[in-house]
Amino acid sequence: MEIAHPYLLFLGDVPDALAAKTALGIVDWRPEWCLGQFRLPGCAADAKLPDMTIAEAAAAGVRTMVVGAVNAGGVLPDHWVVPIVEALHTGLDVASGLHMRLADDPEIRAAAERTGRKLHDVRHTSERFPTGKGTKRPGLRLLTVGTDCSVGKKYTALALEKAMRARGYAADFRATGQTGVFISGRGVAIDAVVADFISGAVEWIAPAADPDHWDLVEGQGSLFHPSFAGVSLGLLHGAQPDAFVVCHEPTRTRMRGVQHPLPSIAEVIDLTVRCGRLTNPAIRCVGIAINTEHLNDVDAAHTIAAAADAHGLPASDPIRFGLEPIVDEIERHWPR
Amino acid sequence: MEIAHPYLLFLGDVPDALAAKTALGIVDWRPEWCLGQFRLPGCAADAKLPDMTIAEAAAAGVRTMVVGAVNAGGVLPDHWVVPIVEALHTGLDVASGLHMRLADDPEIRAAAERTGRKLHDVRHTSERFPTGKGTKRPGLRLLTVGTDCSVGKKYTALALEKAMRARGYAADFRATGQTGVFISGRGVAIDAVVADFISGAVEWIAPAADPDHWDLVEGQGSLFHPSFAGVSLGLLHGAQPDAFVVCHEPTRTRMRGVQHPLPSIAEVIDLTVRCGRLTNPAIRCVGIAINTEHLNDVDAAHTIAAAADAHGLPASDPIRFGLEPIVDEIERHWPR
Repeated sequence: MEIAHPYLLFLGDVPDALAAKTALGIVDWRPEWCLGQFRLPGCAADAKLPDMTIAEAAAAGVRTMVVGAVNAGGVLPDHWVVPIVEALHTGLDVASGLHMRLADDPEIRAAAERTGRKLHDVRHTSERFPTGKGTKRPGLRLLTVGTDCSVGKKYTALALEKAMRARGYAADFRATGQTGVFISGRGVAIDAVVADFISGAVEWIAPAADPDHWDLVEGQGSLFHPSFAGVSLGLLHGAQPDAFVVCHEPTRTRMRGVQHPLPSIAEVIDLTVRCGRLTNPAIRCVGIAINTEHLNDVDAAHTIAAAADAHGLPASDPIRFGLEPIVDEIERHWPR
Repeated sequence: MEIAHPYLLFLGDVPDALAAKTALGIVDWRPEWCLGQFRLPGCAADAKLPDMTIAEAAAAGVRTMVVGAVNAGGVLPDHWVVPIVEALHTGLDVASGLHMRLADDPEIRAAAERTGRKLHDVRHTSERFPTGKGTKRPGLRLLTVGTDCSVGKKYTALALEKAMRARGYAADFRATGQTGVFISGRGVAIDAVVADFISGAVEWIAPAADPDHWDLVEGQGSLFHPSFAGVSLGLLHGAQPDAFVVCHEPTRTRMRGVQHPLPSIAEVIDLTVRCGRLTNPAIRCVGIAINTEHLNDVDAAHTIAAAADAHGLPASDPIRFGLEPIVDEIERHWPR
């Protein structure tokens, strides 16, 4: 799926910033694609963009309105349908991260058919993928993996894209989750693909490329998460990464949504190498990204230094300290 | 999905037995559920059941007509629609293993709505599963795993059901693939589930049970298959098996559909134990099922003896020699 930009971010009338976190993530990483926000009366979220009407957005060159907020229950409220239909009639495509498909609403479907505009439901995919082949393809790839879900895998891949481009690498973030798809304007929410096609979809997301081009593939879940490890393994095999970075949140004691303790970083490195060798025998770990947001400065620095020491790898917090040490490691193994 | 039996097997007018292998698999394992077959002129497949008209089948007590054959291309030919509609009007449900959904044909959908009969598309699932939790549940479970796809995992699980029941175990085959769903009248084609819900679907397929009850869960793919390993890992975590049997075809040199060599049995045992411990720390291998159909008697016996010796585990071919040695091993660890 390819989503045309620039975007108008639709925030609805959500009660807090958390409900608009998809929109806020897009602004963080693609401010140049976000020309404005459209809010309904009572909206408590603010992406710090100019407020625009849909007509103003179209006049400013916006091509897609992104529904970047979720209301309680994740369904599409009736009073959001009116602006979505208006956007279609004004010549914009509409993209949504809601669980419910836009096209399942009869008014929206009719408006899209009448106007010929596109509806993108990034949590769903109608794309038919071949099954994965596991054949080595040209180009270099890095995958972010995790000790758990929601530990910074998307953020780390995006921060690496920025840092590597700054050093002159040809490098592209490759999205595998819904916010990532909005940020890159392309990709597939891999957890929504039919199980048989996980690795095949990733082969499509990160296709053959120039020998010195880097795909920075957003990881999902964890090989040690009892709910989602199948997704993580299919993603690892499809991405066939040359390099991977382990993402970790050191204050977490249980894996998200279940009772299982977190695996150690060493266990994640070891199992990732072991399974990853199937489609890339040269796979190696190039660093550890630690999310230290819940630690004070002293503890953060100590935790990072201890991880680097224990594993003989560069470690950092991408937000607090940047990923230069990990890019150094990449440069050491794969000089430009 | 629960499919009512007894069945009438619809074989269409397929040109050979291979195209009817779903139907033949059902007759092999559930002859008592199969009252007859319905064939169109020119059909070259024969399930060795009485040929019946749909009206005769209904009079004999049949409750579901199973489309147990695939024509070239896997689509539903127009001249198969007529008998399917007739079956619905005669009071039968219709179940299909075709890639195309029965309900996507407007005549079939209209007939099902008019008659109130059920359509089952076992390659698809509309069931919404929760994500897997990985919490240990009561009951005992055995999973068949493989060095590759199509090495006898379904057959081995079914043969174990038969052998264990004969010894007085409470044991039920649990289907995770389309033919298995017809054979057990229940289950989910796990490769058709959305990726996020693989392990959750398996938790539903093999739910909490009496402490001495065995679920014999049909495996899929292989942890070493680059196309399908994600499915295999989610299945392993969801099944949380106490015991597993490795299935192997010794003459195969490449994994099905890809260029990768087969892993060794030792590698499969090792990685299955390592990953399986996440949801069942007591997981153990209880035997090796070797498909020796391409070997002569001497080579078959030798291959089996060598595998048993190399791994210190019982080994057998379920068809040629039966699985008694593996049931002995189960009885040794879990006496009735």
